[in-house]
Amino acid sequence: MTRAFNFAAGPAALPTEVLAQAAEEMLDWQGAGMGVMEMSHRGREFMSILAQAQADLRELLAVPENYRILFMQGGALAENALIPMNLLGGARAAERRTADYVVTGSWSVKSQKEARKYCEVNIAASTEDEKFTRLPRMDEWRLSKDPAYVHICTNETIHGVEYFWTPDLAAAGLPDTPLVADVSSHILSRPMDVSKFGVMYGGAQKNIGPSGLTVVIVRDDLLGRALPITPSAFDWKIVAENDSMYNTPPTYAIYIAGLVFQWLKRQGGLAAMDAQNKAKAELLYGYLDGSDFYRTSVAADCRSRMNVPFFLHDDALNEAFLAGARERGLLQLKGHKSVGGMRASIYNAMPLAGVQALVEYLREFERSHG
Amino acid sequence: MTRAFNFAAGPAALPTEVLAQAAEEMLDWQGAGMGVMEMSHRGREFMSILAQAQADLRELLAVPENYRILFMQGGALAENALIPMNLLGGARAAERRTADYVVTGSWSVKSQKEARKYCEVNIAASTEDEKFTRLPRMDEWRLSKDPAYVHICTNETIHGVEYFWTPDLAAAGLPDTPLVADVSSHILSRPMDVSKFGVMYGGAQKNIGPSGLTVVIVRDDLLGRALPITPSAFDWKIVAENDSMYNTPPTYAIYIAGLVFQWLKRQGGLAAMDAQNKAKAELLYGYLDGSDFYRTSVAADCRSRMNVPFFLHDDALNEAFLAGARERGLLQLKGHKSVGGMRASIYNAMPLAGVQALVEYLREFERSHG
Repeated sequence: MTRAFNFAAGPAALPTEVLAQAAEEMLDWQGAGMGVMEMSHRGREFMSILAQAQADLRELLAVPENYRILFMQGGALAENALIPMNLLGGARAAERRTADYVVTGSWSVKSQKEARKYCEVNIAASTEDEKFTRLPRMDEWRLSKDPAYVHICTNETIHGVEYFWTPDLAAAGLPDTPLVADVSSHILSRPMDVSKFGVMYGGAQKNIGPSGLTVVIVRDDLLGRALPITPSAFDWKIVAENDSMYNTPPTYAIYIAGLVFQWLKRQGGLAAMDAQNKAKAELLYGYLDGSDFYRTSVAADCRSRMNVPFFLHDDALNEAFLAGARERGLLQLKGHKSVGGMRASIYNAMPLAGVQALVEYLREFERSHG
Repeated sequence: MTRAFNFAAGPAALPTEVLAQAAEEMLDWQGAGMGVMEMSHRGREFMSILAQAQADLRELLAVPENYRILFMQGGALAENALIPMNLLGGARAAERRTADYVVTGSWSVKSQKEARKYCEVNIAASTEDEKFTRLPRMDEWRLSKDPAYVHICTNETIHGVEYFWTPDLAAAGLPDTPLVADVSSHILSRPMDVSKFGVMYGGAQKNIGPSGLTVVIVRDDLLGRALPITPSAFDWKIVAENDSMYNTPPTYAIYIAGLVFQWLKRQGGLAAMDAQNKAKAELLYGYLDGSDFYRTSVAADCRSRMNVPFFLHDDALNEAFLAGARERGLLQLKGHKSVGGMRASIYNAMPLAGVQALVEYLREFERSHG
């Protein structure tokens, strides 16, 4: 058995310890006589797994009591529709028919496009003209008068830009407007102040666990604003009232997420991950910055610590670079087709040793092809 | 490690061989240097897993070429909304605003209720007055003039009624109307003639694999009828055009489903499962029929071979029955709360030996408590 360093953007590497425990318990979970995949979701065994996963996630992210943690399905792309569906109804539906979007990369482009099926969309700011190489400052935002919500993507997996600040809607004159954030690709990478958001959501397949699980963290006063066309299985209020059990939840994915949460606690929680993720990112960006052979295009103050797109000075070398990387057990470094070049995704489960091995290879390849 | 006999209704028992292989490959799939959960869904490794799973399912069920197999999320409860969303639009939307439902148990009750958000619902037939203990004959159905579709649930997991015939809508004067069937809890238990259906759908967590995966088999001329409010991630046409990759699919659940399909092929395919499932059901119903201590309430010609609800002659004995069963490694026999009593779900992965052990226990308990 050989474990490579896997730089995939998601689904992505998981901690080896987590997978080893899952393998061990596959046929018989803690003497239950069955594996987790085979458990009734309403039996006491799985109920305990679900409750522990929710409690651990709440503890790790310091989710305040007035927020609900929902385990759903469909990923962030489904939520792109489910967010307007869940936030455009309710008592003030007639007045609030617009949602504001800040567009900073492929994911927020998709989010605002899907929302147009359900509401008026105001693009409060966009860096599309600059190829999404920076985040718009808040003084560049042009917000609507009374939007139903303001949507941001706090880490753009494809373009590699990350927010290291949280927009303050109260300061912008919208104290009652919920800030909604797609946090798919950097949730749990560092502490975040959940109380500054109305809704945080994300697919699990980066820092949480397997694909097929969506986490939605929603302030409880925002429940009950669903449009009548919202499918019951995706109505946050119904999901919350049924403790993520209105429909059969993706039980095995929740179990794996729970093992990841326990692993994160053993690592020292999000403060420890923050330090490690900073160290990994500084090592990689530091090397790239010091080289003329490679380049990055994202502004220094919003470079993602999770997803590092970079380019060789000559695209003709890309195939040789990737082939050499594969030989050394450095997998899935090819950039997204919309950006080109390379991308190293270095989520929580990527150890520092993996980034060191990548930098070593970058140096070697530069030496032999420079 | 002890494996019990697990009679859960779903998520349910999986073949031990399948789980053993999954455990073995958890950290490194076929020398890829990573587990299946960690693979990019667009990488060649996972693409091959997906293609094989689709091909094997097509072969097992003899799915005709003009049908698409979609791997989705949200389970049958989500599809209850997604079916009207996907079938009520298109060129003839203005004329076809009604959908017909045949109501035969808890699941079809839920299906028609959810559909009312999106269309007029005509209950073509219902056996609710008879506590869902039989299926309505087709001469009892009162179909609409031109419904968008006719919906049935071909196996009611909770009430234990199963169709052993396929409604012929052409003979009923509706040759162009698609028959839509929730097949969640008996798909792959025996051969079925897919060509008689417009859409078959189901959650995976009974005979296919883990919860969190939904299979939709749809005739290709029915694609393109979605209402404009349909979320893109759940629009069958978009899902089909992207080969179930519009959003990140539940990759690990698809992998496990693929292992189950391979296991089914090794067992001899659906003809072999049919024979084994008949033998299991006859053994269990045969014993229950021959006893005054137990009773079943479903009419003989529509008793489900997958889900067998039964009752002790005295409900006061239920707790003792369940405790004794657990002691013998016979798990999750408690009936659904809406029906009471007991329920034995005996899907494909339940071996004949499990049903023999259950019958043995039924006899023993009758002897000691009769």
